Amino acid sequence: MATVPILGDEAAGAEARAVFADIRATRQTDFVNNFWRALAADPALLAAVWERVKLVMAPGALDPLVKELIYVAVSTTNGCSYCVHSHTAAARAKGMTEAQHGELLAVIALASQTNALATALQVPVDPAFDRTSQG
Amino acid sequence: MATVPILGDEAAGAEARAVFADIRATRQTDFVNNFWRALAADPALLAAVWERVKLVMAPGALDPLVKELIYVAVSTTNGCSYCVHSHTAAARAKGMTEAQHGELLAVIALASQTNALATALQVPVDPAFDRTSQG
Amino acid sequence: MATVPILGDEAAGAEARAVFADIRATRQTDFVNNFWRALAADPALLAAVWERVKLVMAPGALDPLVKELIYVAVSTTNGCSYCVHSHTAAARAKGMTEAQHGELLAVIALASQTNALATALQVPVDPAFDRTSQG
Amino acid sequence: MATVPILGDEAAGAEARAVFADIRATRQTDFVNNFWRALAADPALLAAVWERVKLVMAPGALDPLVKELIYVAVSTTNGCSYCVHSHTAAARAKGMTEAQHGELLAVIALASQTNALATALQVPVDPAFDRTSQG
Amino acid sequence: MATVPILGDEAAGAEARAVFADIRATRQTDFVNNFWRALAADPALLAAVWERVKLVMAPGALDPLVKELIYVAVSTTNGCSYCVHSHTAAARAKGMTEAQHGELLAVIALASQTNALATALQVPVDPAFDRTSQG
Amino acid sequence: MATVPILGDEAAGAEARAVFADIRATRQTDFVNNFWRALAADPALLAAVWERVKLVMAPGALDPLVKELIYVAVSTTNGCSYCVHSHTAAARAKGMTEAQHGELLAVIALASQTNALATALQVPVDPAFDRTSQG
Repeated sequence: MATVPILGDEAAGAEARAVFADIRATRQTDFVNNFWRALAADPALLAAVWERVKLVMAPGALDPLVKELIYVAVSTTNGCSYCVHSHTAAARAKGMTEAQHGELLAVIALASQTNALATALQVPVDPAFDRTSQG
Repeated sequence: MATVPILGDEAAGAEARAVFADIRATRQTDFVNNFWRALAADPALLAAVWERVKLVMAPGALDPLVKELIYVAVSTTNGCSYCVHSHTAAARAKGMTEAQHGELLAVIALASQTNALATALQVPVDPAFDRTSQG
Repeated sequence: MATVPILGDEAAGAEARAVFADIRATRQTDFVNNFWRALAADPALLAAVWERVKLVMAPGALDPLVKELIYVAVSTTNGCSYCVHSHTAAARAKGMTEAQHGELLAVIALASQTNALATALQVPVDPAFDRTSQG
Repeated sequence: MATVPILGDEAAGAEARAVFADIRATRQTDFVNNFWRALAADPALLAAVWERVKLVMAPGALDPLVKELIYVAVSTTNGCSYCVHSHTAAARAKGMTEAQHGELLAVIALASQTNALATALQVPVDPAFDRTSQG
Repeated sequence: MATVPILGDEAAGAEARAVFADIRATRQTDFVNNFWRALAADPALLAAVWERVKLVMAPGALDPLVKELIYVAVSTTNGCSYCVHSHTAAARAKGMTEAQHGELLAVIALASQTNALATALQVPVDPAFDRTSQG
Repeated sequence: MATVPILGDEAAGAEARAVFADIRATRQTDFVNNFWRALAADPALLAAVWERVKLVMAPGALDPLVKELIYVAVSTTNGCSYCVHSHTAAARAKGMTEAQHGELLAVIALASQTNALATALQVPVDPAFDRTSQG
């Protein structure tokens, strides 16, 4: 189920199809996953999100696999089922090993646990962590 | 403010002080931050959390800086103010550059945005992402 | 799947059926959606929630469609799959156009992104935003 | 800081003062905490929330302390700083011991951890847990 | 406290100052709030976020006040203290009345409550809410 | 669907099978639910989580049913569908009555509502709730 139609290539309009073509070219695969097909009814939003994904996830000061691990961490914490599936698959496609997946899970689990404790205890931030006055 | 006392070295009991000593030895610093001091009233919980942090955050298939970046991502998404402060500081201590921090922020922001969209659209998971039947 | 039975009209008790009748009369439809049927095993909770929905979602200083848009925004952010489906449908029933849906999605996505950034940066609240002392 | 004025007894209107009086009588204390004073600018909302708190938190099938522990668990998970403070204090006022607080924290931390893991793994729900068809 | 410096006009670089100038011109005020100053150390991210805010929050199928109400709803649900403050102030600046604020709060509170119930009950989505097959 | 294989007894390795055996012995049932089978590909993580569950959920200052109610509360607030199902079932197995379930739901709903209000209002914490200086 979905709250919008999931558009196939024919049902999508010309603007959306152009974005699909760029997704295919950039990722070097014919596969366009449902997230983009669900956005296709609003081509301006589709294009804006895709442009941002292409830019932010490109190699930079962090390598693309590390970016995917961060993406999985955020998606898990937000409880986004679709995103956990798609970005875990993307991390594997970018070379994530089983051992790396296991450590990713362990860090996410640990952080979730200590986040809850720090919030339950309402621990005051140590002044040593402040950067405000350093600019 | 906090929901528990933040124990100084003298106020902490012997078991808690032993954990403080191990934190100091492991991190090679005299500084014991408030999170551990807030847990010190419950030495068994303090010890269990510290043992887990020491184990999970050690070098492995992922390097310690990558683990800190994942930690910051989870802490941000959970809205844990204390943890965002402490783990951003920890990432800097482990060598995070300004450029890496900027990319970390950009990935967190992008994931938060697409998580919200996938949830609002209730996008069905593509069968290609499934791993259930592969075991 | 569910953690409680989803009661049909016959299985529901007299108190629950009375609430179902009021839902039907208020909404001018025979359709009673699963949320109410899942609550029907606890007629006091069912009645309390329905009374509140009827009161809060009625026309007032904000029009009913605007209230549904806010409802979708909260439900999306909470990751409530059922609620995203039911309130997106309700917004459409109250006249939400495709263009309005697209803008709703864009605002939710933008806010999710800037929320994450403000949290990751731990931006201090500007004194100009304070209202405490104005009462 | 706050997004609304925090009304003292004089600044509050007659309706709000009547709710304050009922809070004082019910709790047998002169202290009215800031949550109620922040709601006081909207007496209808103030009264609705207070009536619900009074009803739901009263002794029933669960005892009042257990209800407070559940309240702290929800407030912690939602990251509501104010609520963590106020309901931890309320739990202590209702008799929560240090040992009980420690176990509450341990359960919250454990659940946060396994919640994250189940979400990251996207574990399918076992059919044995389903109750849908039992009604 | 913050995890980054909050840059004044002089400390900000030329690119960041250009964004500040556009914020001032667009909003017709000299005031540049801390969110933008915290982003200023990363001018590319600052510019990308500001461009998106300017585009998405402009008048369209939804009026700017309605967009701010949605923004407050998302920010509240995400527990972003800074964003709740800044967007509540923005909503007031765009004309939000006290009565509208009260109804906004009531809808957010109601949705938070029914979201939690639907999740606790794991209510199955009614087929009537599905749009997948309609495209 | 899942992001990892769900291992049956044969597919699991010796270490994982030893944990399964301890789960069966501790719970006095042959049933090993999918959460543990999804973790089984990483036996070290599986063992660490199970040891913690066994320790934390054992009888102590809080009784096991109360701990399960807290677990359901956290799982609901985190929106973890799997965990809501499994821990609601566990609570029933430990004796939760329908009346207790109804009150649990009512407290979770109430807390979710007041959490949202306190966050939207940004209510300042009353000094009376502070414990920092009491240690």
